[in-house]
Amino acid sequence: MAKAYTLGVDYGTNSVRALVVDCADGREAGTFVFDYPSGDQGILLDPKDPHLARQSPADYVAGLEASVNGALVAAEKQPGFARADVVGIGVDTTGSTPIPVDAKNRPLALEAKWKASLAAQAWLWKDHTGAEEAAAITRIAAEHAPRYLAPIGGTYSSEWFWSKVWHCLEVAPDVFAAAHSWVELADFVPALLAGIDDPARIQRCVCAAGHKAMYSDVWGGLPSKDFLKRLDPRLADLRDRLFEKAWAPDRPAGTLSKGWAAKLGLHAGITIAMGGFDAHYGAVGSGVRSGTLVKIIGTSTCDCAVAPATQKVQDVPGICGIVNGSIMPGYYGIEAGQSAVGDILKWWVEGVCEGDERLHAELSAEAARLKPGQSGLVALDWNNGNRTILVDPRLTGLVVGQTLHTTRAEVYRALIEATAYGARAIIERLREYGVPIDRVVCCGGIAEKNPLFMQIYADVIGHPMLVAGSPQTPALGAAISAAVAAGAHASFEAAQERMTSLKETHHTPSPAAKRVYDELYGVYRELHDAFGGVRGAKADFPSLMKRLLALRERETSR
Amino acid sequence: MAKAYTLGVDYGTNSVRALVVDCADGREAGTFVFDYPSGDQGILLDPKDPHLARQSPADYVAGLEASVNGALVAAEKQPGFARADVVGIGVDTTGSTPIPVDAKNRPLALEAKWKASLAAQAWLWKDHTGAEEAAAITRIAAEHAPRYLAPIGGTYSSEWFWSKVWHCLEVAPDVFAAAHSWVELADFVPALLAGIDDPARIQRCVCAAGHKAMYSDVWGGLPSKDFLKRLDPRLADLRDRLFEKAWAPDRPAGTLSKGWAAKLGLHAGITIAMGGFDAHYGAVGSGVRSGTLVKIIGTSTCDCAVAPATQKVQDVPGICGIVNGSIMPGYYGIEAGQSAVGDILKWWVEGVCEGDERLHAELSAEAARLKPGQSGLVALDWNNGNRTILVDPRLTGLVVGQTLHTTRAEVYRALIEATAYGARAIIERLREYGVPIDRVVCCGGIAEKNPLFMQIYADVIGHPMLVAGSPQTPALGAAISAAVAAGAHASFEAAQERMTSLKETHHTPSPAAKRVYDELYGVYRELHDAFGGVRGAKADFPSLMKRLLALRERETSR
Repeated sequence: MAKAYTLGVDYGTNSVRALVVDCADGREAGTFVFDYPSGDQGILLDPKDPHLARQSPADYVAGLEASVNGALVAAEKQPGFARADVVGIGVDTTGSTPIPVDAKNRPLALEAKWKASLAAQAWLWKDHTGAEEAAAITRIAAEHAPRYLAPIGGTYSSEWFWSKVWHCLEVAPDVFAAAHSWVELADFVPALLAGIDDPARIQRCVCAAGHKAMYSDVWGGLPSKDFLKRLDPRLADLRDRLFEKAWAPDRPAGTLSKGWAAKLGLHAGITIAMGGFDAHYGAVGSGVRSGTLVKIIGTSTCDCAVAPATQKVQDVPGICGIVNGSIMPGYYGIEAGQSAVGDILKWWVEGVCEGDERLHAELSAEAARLKPGQSGLVALDWNNGNRTILVDPRLTGLVVGQTLHTTRAEVYRALIEATAYGARAIIERLREYGVPIDRVVCCGGIAEKNPLFMQIYADVIGHPMLVAGSPQTPALGAAISAAVAAGAHASFEAAQERMTSLKETHHTPSPAAKRVYDELYGVYRELHDAFGGVRGAKADFPSLMKRLLALRERETSR
Repeated sequence: MAKAYTLGVDYGTNSVRALVVDCADGREAGTFVFDYPSGDQGILLDPKDPHLARQSPADYVAGLEASVNGALVAAEKQPGFARADVVGIGVDTTGSTPIPVDAKNRPLALEAKWKASLAAQAWLWKDHTGAEEAAAITRIAAEHAPRYLAPIGGTYSSEWFWSKVWHCLEVAPDVFAAAHSWVELADFVPALLAGIDDPARIQRCVCAAGHKAMYSDVWGGLPSKDFLKRLDPRLADLRDRLFEKAWAPDRPAGTLSKGWAAKLGLHAGITIAMGGFDAHYGAVGSGVRSGTLVKIIGTSTCDCAVAPATQKVQDVPGICGIVNGSIMPGYYGIEAGQSAVGDILKWWVEGVCEGDERLHAELSAEAARLKPGQSGLVALDWNNGNRTILVDPRLTGLVVGQTLHTTRAEVYRALIEATAYGARAIIERLREYGVPIDRVVCCGGIAEKNPLFMQIYADVIGHPMLVAGSPQTPALGAAISAAVAAGAHASFEAAQERMTSLKETHHTPSPAAKRVYDELYGVYRELHDAFGGVRGAKADFPSLMKRLLALRERETSR
């Protein structure tokens, strides 16, 4: 194999990171992080509306040049690396983060006229201003086109493409009218690198289209004009200026333009891979394959799995999305997630206990001295709603089992356990609908830094918790996509075999702990099913507190 | 009315207080507090057993002389007071606090032989070492004599007379054998003042006998020898050395002996009133009467009401005790309570938030700025079980409705509200069974110092929360009993009319807040009835969190 490097460029919420990777073994040759200069840590806010979150497209453009050049400069300090050895660039981004563009594929926000308009900026994934539009889309689809809802778990989100574009039409019709098209950030950056100056010629990724814009080959692309007319006739008109077809990352998005080649000191014409979402390329960089669940654990979690496209995967109720080719070519990409994981612990430690990082560590150490069941507590992990498997943002937290002696460390542990039960519920649901899960690989800060958390997950789920070798799995996954698109590897599978790894550290379930957690998970499911409105929910609430007390007494005296 | 004063002597958990009161208007002429010198703040502990709590009878004797003399010295500084004007002494105490005594009515613990024996001391109300015996008594009574359980709500407590005496028999049979009889502290002190040196001649109060020893005129006194034989034949033997009859405080316990008259500088022969429990005499001192509920609010609460003995009061399920004459002659005394009120707030502020008195004040101020419903939270007040109306110590706390933004002040307020819902459930239960409640009088530290707490109670219960005029209602109640027994007033009602008062401060319900709390109380009852095992409980859990969120949004934007 000839010497070959690819670049992975990872657009996060507050910064963009570039990574230079050796295609032979996935080793990092150089990396660089560029913090977005605009707004509050890169996010444009509206003091009058806490739901608004936008970003400046100018930051994306400046960040591309700065991060890639920075990573290349760092790589050049490694013996044997030269810019000429870079054979491709891959890009992953947050999403759905659509950008209104003109007919030349230039973001409106780069024009003087629209520079100050919040509606003309990129609509960041966590912008929730389109909540009413999302509810209307769900309602109208449920009545007139329920098939659109099946692959997304039954509810269209305010974070997604159509909610945002429709909301722009409602609150800033001038911006909507000025926009020739709308492009997801994941498609915009590859097109920018490839010098594609016509939105109609962009190769859109099925990952954004399928998970966020109700695109499916089954019904011939985006939702029909008839359906969009029911929302607003101008959205039906827009459909003609979007795209007919979206693609798995089995083809390049283009080749590096002369202009960007000069800016980056790279060969013009090298391959630009299809863009994708950070979680999906993170799964690729973590070694996702049939039977593997990749858990990207942060403030919330994203769970990704793949299933061979040769066998039809049925819709799985409560799973956010199942899209052919959204993670890797030849596989259905399956995405699930929990709305708050790290955020729940942060809420308890910082919000309620008013502590800091040190208290996180103290509570973690104290909680680690407790045995499963010893706190007598069970919690629901719904402080930010439930994304999977109930798909209901209008759910809240619950803690049961408190006495006058319950400590903050016991609650801390109960909240970790609650998120682990939520994780187990997702795995059980996937299996129930024929998606086998026999290996769990975790990535993200918590996976690397919180052994208590990982041990609880192993004990609750009953599988070893493996940890991805790279701390930058999304950028690595984008670099893998570029390596495949550039021909350095024959397939994603082959590239993963060489370029991904696992950490030696992993967490193995204790059979004794697993048995106690099986009982506690039963209690969690009683609460989960009853308060989550699961049909046929069974619970024995009159005995629930007594069972927790008895379990506590048994495990404490053991 | 001739000038007349009485003394009220209040035996608390850590100290004894004497109060000199003017029979004309209830005004305090002098007071003195004596801290028990033994043990940890007056409590003898066993480092090996956290359930053990005893007290030294020697402390009681020393405290009697010191506190009464101290109060008299203080009163003598008032113009117009002379010791010769004291016409009677009343006593209230904790209970059930039984003391093993010899045939001369001397506590065994005063003898050198037993001085060091914990079993020979007074068994303080909160001693829980007899938990197994309590469970056995409940089980055996349920099978063989269910009528004994009806007036005490169905469950015999480890805090009560027979659990303690039986446990002594089990763990210290030598002490049990040496004890000629057992005397409640509430009966012991009046007998001591009156110089009664034979346990058989003590006038026992029906308050201790009826609420704690399963005494009832209906079945001829204490439980039958047949029943006691099922526990242990030696308990059946003991019955002969206890008492046949217990009395309402409608007769004196005796007259002041020469010995104690000399010690106290009072006339020998003045009236000693019948003893009683602190909560009951506290109700008297708070002005309890038909239709009035007196709430003594502290770490836990005791709720007392009376109903005319001329009309038969049915057993009220879940109410701790209904005993003819236990509070005032001519009335059924009705006792209910909540296992943790101040203790739940203390747990949250000190146990979880690790704060102090200042944090109590801060959270109180912050919580006061919230509107009802604004936290989106509902809690169950069961961190220490539920005394009334479920009578189940094996229940625990629950909080529902948390988001990632829930604050410690919101939880603090939700916990106050939970105890208020628990208080409302008691009132509704009493009314349901024909005990009218049209006036609520509160006493205790929280009633006087926490306006937020009192306002929430007014809004939840829908009644003005009145506050007793005296901060020493138990001692005042004992002094009232002495005034009646001595003939300074014709009846308890007449004495209360003159000697009790209300503070000018009171807390009036806001109709708007009441409406919101009616909704929230509905949610509380869904949880209460389901988790409390109430037959026919109705709950709509799938909508519960959504209803709380909607209520929060409505009330926040109002």
